Amino acid sequence: MATLFTKIVQGEIPSYKIAEDERSYAFLDINPLAKGHTLVVPKQEVDYLFDVEDDLLSHLTVFSKKVAKAIEATIPCQRVGVAVVGLDVPHAHIHLIPINHIGDINFSRPKLEFSQEEFENIAASIRGNYTS
Amino acid sequence: MATLFTKIVQGEIPSYKIAEDERSYAFLDINPLAKGHTLVVPKQEVDYLFDVEDDLLSHLTVFSKKVAKAIEATIPCQRVGVAVVGLDVPHAHIHLIPINHIGDINFSRPKLEFSQEEFENIAASIRGNYTS
Repeated sequence: MATLFTKIVQGEIPSYKIAEDERSYAFLDINPLAKGHTLVVPKQEVDYLFDVEDDLLSHLTVFSKKVAKAIEATIPCQRVGVAVVGLDVPHAHIHLIPINHIGDINFSRPKLEFSQEEFENIAASIRGNYTS
Repeated sequence: MATLFTKIVQGEIPSYKIAEDERSYAFLDINPLAKGHTLVVPKQEVDYLFDVEDDLLSHLTVFSKKVAKAIEATIPCQRVGVAVVGLDVPHAHIHLIPINHIGDINFSRPKLEFSQEEFENIAASIRGNYTS
């Protein structure tokens, strides 16, 4: 059965898309730790990031860098932090999170809430700063 | 002036080394969130991970995967999580952290303490499982 993220990649479940290429897809986390919190996933279904084969893993990292640059250009922050936990959805995903303090990456913190319109505006702004 | 991590890479400051290749270096975090918590750094001094050029960034990710496999083979855990925050030392570093729960990556949590001998034993065990 397709994972949640495969359904998102295939458009079966809607997402606030940031960018896409032939092997990867980036979209807003709908339970964000910060405004602009984005998930990057490989289109290939692999549960665990470190089981992704080297070539795709490298591709995913360079794609994440381009997405991070677009987030930085959009959301005021010190930098974009990275987290990979992956104990929830069995499809590897890289969190890109705008941060200002060392404690900002903490999945126990309450998540932010945005309206659909706010999510759409955030995604559109980041997309506008994305360079493939 | 050389960063703390450059001094570690050059052996000027001692570290519990896990692995090394021509472009990257891995060693135990001495303020660990979990037993086996390891830092991976590029030998090149770059402050921010997403300023590392694509080829080195890819290399660093694949090196991190090899280190993560060695950690997993040594430390009982669900998987090895990843975090990059980088608001402290101005030299990009990737945290590889054995995790069991989604809240395990949280830099506000109290750090674990180990004796020098314990750190040495942990490092030796992980090194023994490292395949370059």
